[in-house]
Amino acid sequence: MIGLGAIGGSVAWRATQAGIARVVGWTRERADGIEALKREAVTDLAESPERAARGAALVLLAVPPGATLDLLGRVRPWLAPGAIVTDVASVKREVVERACREGLAERFAGGHPLAGTHATGFAAARPDMFAKAVVYVCPTGSPAGGQAAHGVAGFWREVMDAQPVLIEAATHDELLAWTSHLPQVVASALAVALAERGLRGVSYGPGGRDTTRLAASDPALWADILLQNRDAVASAIAAMSGSLSRLAALLERRDATALAAYLEQGANFRRGIDR
Amino acid sequence: MIGLGAIGGSVAWRATQAGIARVVGWTRERADGIEALKREAVTDLAESPERAARGAALVLLAVPPGATLDLLGRVRPWLAPGAIVTDVASVKREVVERACREGLAERFAGGHPLAGTHATGFAAARPDMFAKAVVYVCPTGSPAGGQAAHGVAGFWREVMDAQPVLIEAATHDELLAWTSHLPQVVASALAVALAERGLRGVSYGPGGRDTTRLAASDPALWADILLQNRDAVASAIAAMSGSLSRLAALLERRDATALAAYLEQGANFRRGIDR
Repeated sequence: MIGLGAIGGSVAWRATQAGIARVVGWTRERADGIEALKREAVTDLAESPERAARGAALVLLAVPPGATLDLLGRVRPWLAPGAIVTDVASVKREVVERACREGLAERFAGGHPLAGTHATGFAAARPDMFAKAVVYVCPTGSPAGGQAAHGVAGFWREVMDAQPVLIEAATHDELLAWTSHLPQVVASALAVALAERGLRGVSYGPGGRDTTRLAASDPALWADILLQNRDAVASAIAAMSGSLSRLAALLERRDATALAAYLEQGANFRRGIDR
Repeated sequence: MIGLGAIGGSVAWRATQAGIARVVGWTRERADGIEALKREAVTDLAESPERAARGAALVLLAVPPGATLDLLGRVRPWLAPGAIVTDVASVKREVVERACREGLAERFAGGHPLAGTHATGFAAARPDMFAKAVVYVCPTGSPAGGQAAHGVAGFWREVMDAQPVLIEAATHDELLAWTSHLPQVVASALAVALAERGLRGVSYGPGGRDTTRLAASDPALWADILLQNRDAVASAIAAMSGSLSRLAALLERRDATALAAYLEQGANFRRGIDR
């Protein structure tokens, strides 16, 4: 387990609880490593990512997307025969391409669990974080890579109690630009607009807090994600801007009927995605 | 209690639990009235708003903003001497103005609890909905109206266990345009953008669900609120559009440092409003 923050820490913790005999962790954050060891989320701490990877049956990179790209090449020489490598980055095309360039086409599959938290570090980890969560698994496209994807999906389903869904990396990124990256961008843009209006010390109801919640996410992590998926995200932002402009125009025209119909379209959509 | 939906139902329910001997409710929705009576959230049901108001010490209008305006005139002739009238609409300037025009300047104060739910009807009511919640109370500005505001604030503090905050109606509406109405508009615009992209049947993580949660709110209610506060809301939407455009420009320029700084600004703001 390379990275013991909210995601990596949760995966490691559940794995040890599920009876995996050896879970070796590495993290840049010393305090996260100590805490993970104390809570028995890992059985060992390694001195470097390379040492954590050495001899492991499954190497999971749970670091930001930029660091994930770098680590693929660094761990490759240390992999045991038959080892599978995966990651948890929210954007998958570049990661899968890099894995293939690093000669990992047959032993890598990308992963992206649709769960987590805007909080960071092992303090935000919990062993049941992925129970019943959808986890996208992206094969490299090479024939033997299908085996690796099968292994990664099996890990999420059987050890993590999650629901793996196989999806091609480019399709994943296009989809997530809308379902995840756009909500993040919208929450951040709203928070910035409120901050610049000087509305820091006032009261927010549950609606204002929920709509901006994602803005509290790790800025460096999200800068990485948005840049790796920038074309698809740019299209999604353009659609959002258009949607806002239409609402503003209905308000300007004082068109109560059309305004209610617009809000109804949003309400119908939102009620449809509740689980 | 005129209106026994999520808000009116909750207030009535808490009032009966707190030992108010007589809580007379009226609602247009027959099923809500029956349920409120069965759960002992009200002690009586009235046949009309006028009958519910007759003889009451406190008349609370818990209906959408448009209906609130209409009801002020309808209940006035039925008020007992010394009765206080209040409401719970999310937008206050027009309500307070109408109350004054209807001759209620000395016995009305507007109310707006910063709590609630996107769900509607008595089924969404719960007696502790307003515990510790901020409740804005807007005096009419007439000297005797201060007494009414004092009475309304006392009701929220002592009976509802809420935290009343006195604020002038125009100031309230300007503030809420940003802290509440803009988040609603943003959630709806995002939901419409996703709906039009055809992304109904796909998986959303907790972030996508939270950011769009408000879109499930009652469309007719929100069309009312946004139209009653349209100038202030239009300014807030313009600021949000500008904020989104700046983010899009940073992405277009691939400016990782400036993008992270932008996201950091939003993160700092959001972390600051958590309670």
